[in-house]
Amino acid sequence: MRMATIEQRLAEYLELTKKMKSYEEALGVLYWDMRTGAPRKGLETRAEVIGVLSTELFKLSTSDRMGELLAALTEPAAFESLSRLHRRSVTESKKDYDRSKKIPPEMYQKYVVLASQAESVWEEAKPNNDFATFRPYLEQVVDYQKQFIELWGYGENKYDTLLDAYEPGMTVTKLDAVFGALRETLVPLVAAIAAKPALDTAFMNRKVPTEQQRAFSEFILKEIGYDFAAGRLDPTTHPFATGLNPGDVRVTTRYIEDDVKNSLFSTIHEGGHALYEQNVSPALIGTNLCTGTSMGIHESQSRLWENMIGRSRPFWERYYGDFQRIVPAFADVPMEDFYRAVNEVKPSLIRTEADELTYNLHIMIRYELEKRLMNDELQVADLPEAWNAMYKEYLGIEPPNDELGVLQDVHWSGGGFGYFPSYSLGNMYAAQMMDAMRAALPTFDADVAAGRFDPIKAWLTEKIYTHGKLLTPSEVIRNVAGAELDPTYLTTYLEAKYKEIYAL
Amino acid sequence: MRMATIEQRLAEYLELTKKMKSYEEALGVLYWDMRTGAPRKGLETRAEVIGVLSTELFKLSTSDRMGELLAALTEPAAFESLSRLHRRSVTESKKDYDRSKKIPPEMYQKYVVLASQAESVWEEAKPNNDFATFRPYLEQVVDYQKQFIELWGYGENKYDTLLDAYEPGMTVTKLDAVFGALRETLVPLVAAIAAKPALDTAFMNRKVPTEQQRAFSEFILKEIGYDFAAGRLDPTTHPFATGLNPGDVRVTTRYIEDDVKNSLFSTIHEGGHALYEQNVSPALIGTNLCTGTSMGIHESQSRLWENMIGRSRPFWERYYGDFQRIVPAFADVPMEDFYRAVNEVKPSLIRTEADELTYNLHIMIRYELEKRLMNDELQVADLPEAWNAMYKEYLGIEPPNDELGVLQDVHWSGGGFGYFPSYSLGNMYAAQMMDAMRAALPTFDADVAAGRFDPIKAWLTEKIYTHGKLLTPSEVIRNVAGAELDPTYLTTYLEAKYKEIYAL
Repeated sequence: MRMATIEQRLAEYLELTKKMKSYEEALGVLYWDMRTGAPRKGLETRAEVIGVLSTELFKLSTSDRMGELLAALTEPAAFESLSRLHRRSVTESKKDYDRSKKIPPEMYQKYVVLASQAESVWEEAKPNNDFATFRPYLEQVVDYQKQFIELWGYGENKYDTLLDAYEPGMTVTKLDAVFGALRETLVPLVAAIAAKPALDTAFMNRKVPTEQQRAFSEFILKEIGYDFAAGRLDPTTHPFATGLNPGDVRVTTRYIEDDVKNSLFSTIHEGGHALYEQNVSPALIGTNLCTGTSMGIHESQSRLWENMIGRSRPFWERYYGDFQRIVPAFADVPMEDFYRAVNEVKPSLIRTEADELTYNLHIMIRYELEKRLMNDELQVADLPEAWNAMYKEYLGIEPPNDELGVLQDVHWSGGGFGYFPSYSLGNMYAAQMMDAMRAALPTFDADVAAGRFDPIKAWLTEKIYTHGKLLTPSEVIRNVAGAELDPTYLTTYLEAKYKEIYAL
Repeated sequence: MRMATIEQRLAEYLELTKKMKSYEEALGVLYWDMRTGAPRKGLETRAEVIGVLSTELFKLSTSDRMGELLAALTEPAAFESLSRLHRRSVTESKKDYDRSKKIPPEMYQKYVVLASQAESVWEEAKPNNDFATFRPYLEQVVDYQKQFIELWGYGENKYDTLLDAYEPGMTVTKLDAVFGALRETLVPLVAAIAAKPALDTAFMNRKVPTEQQRAFSEFILKEIGYDFAAGRLDPTTHPFATGLNPGDVRVTTRYIEDDVKNSLFSTIHEGGHALYEQNVSPALIGTNLCTGTSMGIHESQSRLWENMIGRSRPFWERYYGDFQRIVPAFADVPMEDFYRAVNEVKPSLIRTEADELTYNLHIMIRYELEKRLMNDELQVADLPEAWNAMYKEYLGIEPPNDELGVLQDVHWSGGGFGYFPSYSLGNMYAAQMMDAMRAALPTFDADVAAGRFDPIKAWLTEKIYTHGKLLTPSEVIRNVAGAELDPTYLTTYLEAKYKEIYAL
């Protein structure tokens, strides 16, 4: 065994990661199927199938052989001899391996069961507005997260360890700075808009048959460059995109008869995620680098396409005619009224329904609360009160109950602490990328207004998509913008856009 | 290891078969997905995923540990101590294990590659009417089949070994007898019908929009008792049914605008397969017995529902009004004309388009040819000539070319020798089952004419469906009819039905 050459070990390592990738892809199809129409009565057995494949995948990823191969390949001399792709692949695998190995299997097993129970309890507690029943489960989930942090280790701030799982390299220090700057602009801007008379957006609730919504969704996906030969569009309750491999990246959307905006922007949002995954370099297929590099960078692409392109005036100058053609109910609504309506700003209680501007405030509230929980500055029992106080402070409104407050999101019940910041990071990355893209493509606005997305997609592919996980999030933003993450691009963009719309 | 008790070994064996069943179910979802709309560009990578899971499944099924467990559990004392379910499960596994182990892995690997190539070559050769190019591939496939027969061993006739894979216990001796009896009735009956003036069935080609065909397919599946909470209906090029588990049994159908009959009877046919799989006892879930017991018995259920119920006069007395309501293009067609049209008999060249009567002759031709090939009484080179001669003899017509002749079916290219008889066995089983059911349910015709399928489904479930693979095919027919397979039920049924329709 000791006699194996680096080449042999590398080959074995690549074979092993490819096998893992195959299990991931099979699981991806099973999850997609469950969410797009797998019959209810088969789900119990299907859950066992998923259990069998997941267990096998976990065994492969934490196997002794994987440990030996990674140890050998990360020895300095061996590591130096590897190609850039293989160095990055091994580094990622080593990080995952170490993280997985630091949690005792029995402990992890108990945690998985708890998280699954907690999610079920949350599902019932939410409509019943019953935080008290959910509380002991959430307390245990938080307790496990804290234990994981101790086992994984941490630097300056305990919460950094959780952030790193979704946005490698992100820290509380960096986030406090960027969120602080963002908040300073947003809170007064939102307040100024709230003081203006509300827009008349009643026409947005006109009934639009599902078939028309589906037709426009399909049309607009094709327009922005989504490849239907490498994907498909289906309806689901909660829209999502899933990259099974670059040749099979599926999106879903939600059709609500009296809320056409919902499918419209869900479709473009998921389409943005999908453009990223469809355009990862074929050279990365079968490796652990064949996907988006982080949740934040991924979200930058959904937000860039949904908000910065999809809610822009040039975009609707080009597509409003098509929209009216496919959706006759809007025949008498002027383009400018529609443009303003899809950009309406209104402080609201529910994150998923928030506008482009206030969305970031919803995220900051969750970020602050998670940070305090993980640093023992806040107890789960005091969470509802803290939540409500922050909504009052950041958005000027207060939830009348916990269903519309602390119980609204699924994330915490499943242990997804550290995930929320990705959404706002996405907005910040996107604004900074847009600035760089405008500099590189001087005809950007004219291109959008003409429905010419090829140069835009080509630029994003070259700078971001093709690299998959070959670049870290921080390398991606430096590759795009020549600088680290800077929140001023987002504030500048939002101020300019909304001061114009609301004539401030 | 030697100290393990029977209970421990049984538990380990059941755990192992359950794991295999999970892999099969995952593969089932992947195949279903590939055939119902997986994007083209992702298929290459998906094929590798399927390869990884199939290899893993094959390894599990032929593992040394599986061999040890089966050896221990089939020792007489141990075997006797097992429950009926576990005895049957172990017996089935042992049979599969022995069959798999008898073929050297390298040989099997080469064969899999050849069969895949042969299928690709066939796909091109068929539309080009080019038997010459396909011939060397088919020769090799036949040669492998003969080698497998030698390795697996055989009794009276070499072909028995192939038959047994699809219809356990079936032999050339039995088939020659039942097919002989069937042929004696069918050939003159078909000739007598051919001598009568043709029916006017032009209205069957009226255009029916896909949406109406889909609506009626869904309606009729619900009526016959297909449970949509345990299944779904999708469109495909080649209709099929797949039982992933009893709570997830999916059917597909094919919509052709100017051939409504196609979706109509494909849907009921696949619905029959699905009723079988949906009603296997929950006690069998996770075991190797949780599926239909053989291809022939499975086909009996698709044929029973499609032909003996779905093409019967009482059925259309009940449903023709619904059909006309959903499909207005048939508003002026009298029920009786429609009934005769869906039962039109016409000797034709293509098996998949054949009517209920001539279908069996298409099968017998293939059976005779396969039998001769495997017993060295016919060479692949002489196959087209032999094919054409038999069509002349059995059906009175001759294919003008090989596309409409020997090249029409996919089966042989993929090595599916021994499969064809299942279709006619299904017809014979079905007629015999119908006879028993009519005796047990004296109101059978009235029930069908009233759309009361509950008693019919309940009887079939009790006698057939619930047992899954717990009973052998021969046990099933004895459980249903108290006798072995008897072809006279089919000939009696066909004679009565078609003499009435054609006034012979």
